[in-house]
Amino acid sequence: MAFFVEGAKNVTELLLSDFTITHLLLTDKFLSEQQTLLARFEGEKIVTTPKALKSMGTFSSNEQALAVARIKPNAPLEIRPGELILALDDIRDPGNLGTIIRIADWYGIKKILLSPETADVYNPKVLHASMGSFSRMSFEYVDLKSKLSDVAVPVYGAFLEGVSIHDFEGGTDGVLLMGNESHGIRDDLKALVSQKLTIPAFGAAESLNVAIATAVICDNFRRLNK
Amino acid sequence: MAFFVEGAKNVTELLLSDFTITHLLLTDKFLSEQQTLLARFEGEKIVTTPKALKSMGTFSSNEQALAVARIKPNAPLEIRPGELILALDDIRDPGNLGTIIRIADWYGIKKILLSPETADVYNPKVLHASMGSFSRMSFEYVDLKSKLSDVAVPVYGAFLEGVSIHDFEGGTDGVLLMGNESHGIRDDLKALVSQKLTIPAFGAAESLNVAIATAVICDNFRRLNK
Repeated sequence: MAFFVEGAKNVTELLLSDFTITHLLLTDKFLSEQQTLLARFEGEKIVTTPKALKSMGTFSSNEQALAVARIKPNAPLEIRPGELILALDDIRDPGNLGTIIRIADWYGIKKILLSPETADVYNPKVLHASMGSFSRMSFEYVDLKSKLSDVAVPVYGAFLEGVSIHDFEGGTDGVLLMGNESHGIRDDLKALVSQKLTIPAFGAAESLNVAIATAVICDNFRRLNK
Repeated sequence: MAFFVEGAKNVTELLLSDFTITHLLLTDKFLSEQQTLLARFEGEKIVTTPKALKSMGTFSSNEQALAVARIKPNAPLEIRPGELILALDDIRDPGNLGTIIRIADWYGIKKILLSPETADVYNPKVLHASMGSFSRMSFEYVDLKSKLSDVAVPVYGAFLEGVSIHDFEGGTDGVLLMGNESHGIRDDLKALVSQKLTIPAFGAAESLNVAIATAVICDNFRRLNK
């Protein structure tokens, strides 16, 4: 199974990752600007024009490169004490998922568990929004209920009636569970949450977008383990 | 000049705001569910079908209401000590702008200054992403350089080489200036920033989306004035 990424930034990150790139379509510009990186690449290089690249990909702005790579098999991720892991329950919007991957990468998270209903990591919109961060992340699509039923670390979840993240003094390790854009965390997963957390509101908006909430919680967690 | 909003959530918020709604297209469902709110509405009500509503708006999921309202004139906003104000320099993406408006509303910000190049607040995508928060916000499209040249409050900006927001002890009032998605804050505005701030990174991502960065900075500011 293969996927493709578009744009100089994403292709560069993919070349630096452990993904196996089978085909690389690139323009003279990318070829001359990325000589060092390309010297190590052993797959097939096809030099083409910006116009042809645009017509092949899904984004109108790609003028440099497109890579075809192998999808990694869906392998179980180990949940170890001492690390912070994300679990995404039913995140449907590809833009949200890509943004969350970028946030996770910013805050030093390396593993993301995804419910089967969550958007496909290899969707071009997800890859684009992740700005290359997907290449540094490990993913497992899994039934979250069974995966999180018996873990030795705390499971955090965002709720309206939890402890304020401005007062909370934990979060250095464990699983941060984020729920669906409209419905939040599903009922049968709520029981697995060992610590409910709340982002304090200071105005009148009823909620925050799930990617925004993920970033704010991660930032509050990380300020504790500087 | 008129604009329109779609969907039960946004129309409900608009009915609660000080915007002048001239026409309201609604389905029987919305009519029966929002009786109290609609009793106070004196404009024209047109009852229609979900199918007709969908064909009129830009979103495929609108099944309840669409409102046509008057655009507010672009009036100068006063920058007073004691309040936190957002200034957006060249935020082009409507989704980002709408998300930022929602974030501002969550964190109790009531005024947003926008450079002329920033997306239109009344763009349907902006209104949709703001989830009704635009109705509680005051906006001024203005040349930021002249507006911010002579203010009596601090001007904060996000840079790679600023003070860590995890160490910074201010931000209870002033102007938070956020720059373009790709290029950041423009050179001629940089000189107006009195305090450079940085969101500490713990992983490998090069940057955060501008809406995400806005949320994280606002959250760090607000935790100081609980």
